[in-house]
Order: sequence, then C-alpha cells, then structure tokens
Amino acid sequence: MSKALIFGHQNPDTDAIVAAKAFAYYQTQMGFDVEAVALGNPNMETNFVLNHFDEPAPRVIKTVANEVDTVMLVDHNEAQQSVSDLDKVMVSHVVDHHRIANFQTDQPLYYRAEPVGCTSTILTEMFDESKIEIPAKLAGLMLSAIISDTLLLQSPTTTDADREAVRALAEISGEDVQSYGIAMLKAGTNLAAKSDKELIDGDAKSFDMAGRSVRIGQINTVDLADVLDRQAGLEKEMQAEMAADGYDLFITLATNVLNSDSEMIVAGEPKSVIEKAFNTTLTDNRASLPGVVSRKKQVVPPLTAAFNA
Amino acid sequence: MSKALIFGHQNPDTDAIVAAKAFAYYQTQMGFDVEAVALGNPNMETNFVLNHFDEPAPRVIKTVANEVDTVMLVDHNEAQQSVSDLDKVMVSHVVDHHRIANFQTDQPLYYRAEPVGCTSTILTEMFDESKIEIPAKLAGLMLSAIISDTLLLQSPTTTDADREAVRALAEISGEDVQSYGIAMLKAGTNLAAKSDKELIDGDAKSFDMAGRSVRIGQINTVDLADVLDRQAGLEKEMQAEMAADGYDLFITLATNVLNSDSEMIVAGEPKSVIEKAFNTTLTDNRASLPGVVSRKKQVVPPLTAAFNA
Repeated sequence: MSKALIFGHQNPDTDAIVAAKAFAYYQTQMGFDVEAVALGNPNMETNFVLNHFDEPAPRVIKTVANEVDTVMLVDHNEAQQSVSDLDKVMVSHVVDHHRIANFQTDQPLYYRAEPVGCTSTILTEMFDESKIEIPAKLAGLMLSAIISDTLLLQSPTTTDADREAVRALAEISGEDVQSYGIAMLKAGTNLAAKSDKELIDGDAKSFDMAGRSVRIGQINTVDLADVLDRQAGLEKEMQAEMAADGYDLFITLATNVLNSDSEMIVAGEPKSVIEKAFNTTLTDNRASLPGVVSRKKQVVPPLTAAFNA
Repeated sequence: MSKALIFGHQNPDTDAIVAAKAFAYYQTQMGFDVEAVALGNPNMETNFVLNHFDEPAPRVIKTVANEVDTVMLVDHNEAQQSVSDLDKVMVSHVVDHHRIANFQTDQPLYYRAEPVGCTSTILTEMFDESKIEIPAKLAGLMLSAIISDTLLLQSPTTTDADREAVRALAEISGEDVQSYGIAMLKAGTNLAAKSDKELIDGDAKSFDMAGRSVRIGQINTVDLADVLDRQAGLEKEMQAEMAADGYDLFITLATNVLNSDSEMIVAGEPKSVIEKAFNTTLTDNRASLPGVVSRKKQVVPPLTAAFNA
C-alpha cells in the first residue's frame, strides 16, 4: 500500500493530535507507510504537551487527495468534522470513541470504536493486544490526551478502561499524573495569558431579575487561586463595565473544572439577595459555592427566586 | 444493562448464525446479559454445521423493540440488511467485516470491523485479546463459519488472519479442516437433494450463436464427481429440453468452487465447434476445462468466436 495520512478532527485538541501520532507509530510498527498530520494548529494545552515531551507539532494540511489515495481517521468519523476532500480518498482505518454518523465506505475497512473517554485509551489497548511496546515519550503524550479528554479522570465520560490506561502510561512515561495533569490542564486554560477584562468578559451573560440588570460570567480553571489572586483587578473591571453598561449587579463565577467547586466574586448591589439565594455570607465580596458548576442550572434559578421573593 | 439481543443479517448464512452465538458467549463471559437470535432459519449448510456439533438453531425473530432496548449486530451493519425495527433500539456493539454504510448511532458504541474473510475470524482475535478460552464446540462452529465465508480459504477475500484463525480453531476443535470443510460445503450445495432436471435448469441461459440456439447451464459443486456420476441422467434431461424447446446445443458446466476447475457435459451439435473453441477433445460427451469458472467471461466468448469463425 502506498503512503497514508493519519489525522484527527478539525480544531484539533490534544487527543486529535496525539492519537494521530500514536496510531502512526503503531501502523509503522505494523509495516504501513504513514504520516501523522493535523487539520489545524495545536491549541495552548497541546502546545504545552508537545513542548513538555520535546515533540514537534504535526504538519497541518488542508486537503488530502492531492497527496494520497488512502487516509486513516482518529478521534472522529463524521465527514463534516474531517478533511474537506474526504470523499475523494479511501478511508482504510478508523480509531474513535464517538458515535458513528455521516460516515460510509465503499470497501471493508478496519474500524475500532469503544465508548471510552479517549481515543488514546483504545490505542493503549491496541498496543497491548499487538504486543507493541509504547516508547516512554509516546506514553507521555498518550497519557496527556487521556488527562485532557477526561479532565484528569473526573469527567463523567471516564471509564475503567481510561483509568487502567492512565495507570499503564504513567508507569511507562514516569510522569506523576496528578501534578503533571494539573499543570497541563492549567496551560490549557492559561488564565495568565488573558487580561482581567478578557477574563470577566469571557462568556458573561445578562439577566433581568425583578427589574434589576444582573450580569453573570464564568471562568473555568484548574486552580481557583489563579482567579482569586486577581480579585482586585477583576473587581475593578467589573465596576467599570457596570458603569459603562448600566448593570446593577455583576457576579463572576470561578469554577474549578477538576472538583466541580466554584467561588463567586460580586460587585454592585443588592448583595443581601445573593447571600439569601445561596444561603451564604459574602466576605470581602466573595463566597464559596461547593458543588456548583452550572450557571444555567445552579446559579440563575436560585438567584431569580431570591430576587422575586 | 438489561438484556440485549445479538444477531446477524437477514437470510442468514453460517457466519451470521455462528458469529451471533460466538459473540453471545464472549459477552456472557464479559458479564453481559445477551441472547443470540437470528433473522431467519439456517440454510442447508448451517443446518449441517449445527447438527454436526449438536448445537440448537437460534430463535428466529422478526422485530426487536418489543423485547429489548439494546441490540448487538454481527456480520452486517447496513440497516436494510438488519431487523426491520432497528431504528427503535440502541445498537451498543457491532462486529463485522463489511463496508460501513447506511449505519448511524446517537451514542458512542463498540464497533469492531476488519477487512478479513469472516466475522468469526475477528471474534477469534477478540477471544485471544481478552484471554477468554473458546470451548471446543464453539471453536468448531467458528471454524465452520470461516470455511464457509472463505470457501475453505480459497476465496480471494481470504487473509492471513483467516488462515491463522482456522489453524487455531482447528486445533481447539480437533476437526480435520480439509475433510470436514469439504463435507460441510458439500452439504451447502447439496446436489443430492435436487433432481437431474433441477440441476440442469439451475441458472441456465440461452444464447444465439451464428444462427444456432445454444443453452449453457452451470452447476456449482465442491466435488465434480457428484455431478459427473449423474451424467447419464443429466444428458437425458438435456436431450428432453432440447427437443421441447428447440435448442441445437446444450452445455452443462460443472464447476468446482474450491479449485476453480470445470468439466462440461455436452448434448446436441455441432460438437466440433466446441472442441475448436476450447482446444480440447470431447470424450463420452465430456471435456475438462481447467481454470474455467466464469460462464460469462470464459465460456461464451470463445464459443461465440468459434461459431463465427
């Protein structure tokens, strides 16, 4: 067989980049002529991972039919998530952990899907089944992909297979899962690269509650301290926006995606309604909200109720 | 998970029946509550296999949503080959060796496809990977499925994986692949159950060659002797049809599907044109045609050319 390209989905995340590299290594060991490429540049988290393991970023491609007849897909199968000219080539292999939709072939193919948290988990199993040793560096990359997809094994998509793969890959790579994983996820959220204004603007939305204009934003992080250490600057920007846009109340929710806890920073009035809504006391314009992760389901409804009481 | 049904395609062949049974055993060992069923009754070959291993035929079902929420597919994936109400249930697992088409799910699933000769080959690999021992009787059934799909490893779809699975399953089951395989394929063609007239009528077609009406039929077998031993009876029926339907020449081709050789039995005239067409000599109205398997590509063209010369 002539050379085949291997790639993950558009807007690649760490698993899309790493699974392509891992499957390319696997297929090379099996005797195939392949190259791992990508449909976009690595994101901040993936760049952290590649730098950490001194691994080059893959070549970015826009089309495939101009250079190969055959491709192998990882971490996706739906045509609209794939390369634009997928219909012009043969898909010989797929390794994925998503549903199957908008995908079809003319010929029998190799297709391996499992309902687990990460493609790199399936690849870990395949290396084991085929008795191909995973080099330490590649194990570190694959470990990173699983940490990324499962949010350090905390996501509800996590399975026993993911936990077992993480255990095996950590042993091979010698990485400390917890400390490395948090550093990696932190690099992905990369709050340090954003201004106070960018942080509070993020995905903030406005709500009308009993005639008051309430602004609620949310910042995802792996370390609440990274947000709370910047409280003074954040409050200053919140006050500035309240003045400029006429909000009565501005709440910024900092959410730790790893343990599903939040802390809120509040500017404006009436603060008493907030304390009533969440049965808490604001100290230095702040309060903890243990177990709160969803603005839509856990913040807006009690606050609305408290305003209307 | 509640009970799931496992089944192969409509008009089941030996692999469709056996792969369902094998995957049901595998999933039971993995802790799932499953039942192997079928979308139709076993064919003659499969009945031979089930009888040989004293294995009951699976329950035949017409719909699934009336009894389960979840199904697992083997040896097919395209909706039009599957159960009529497939869209009403969740497909949690697929094991198959065909192309993927007209198949989609809402949820991630377990999908295992390989471009090999038989689903039971993939299942043999899965048992090995999961370190689940295959019972001797099941190994015999799976061996039968591979022999069936690959015509005793002679079909061009046969891969090294099929050969390796046959080796392993033969060892476990203790079956002699060649003698058992031929008996099994013979049971599938089951010429004994057909009358001489049924045999020559089979798929016979009429051709006009230089003004002569030429009738050419073909009988597939695993043992040419099964056809040739009945030559007298076959010739008698050929003569009767020639008289009734006005054919000048009647050729019945007996083709050994295992080694791609044919033997022809000829009634009527002109026999000299046949001898010229195939560069052979008819003895007792018969001649060997080594390597001839296709009426369309290897019999009609040279005969037409000889008639027109």
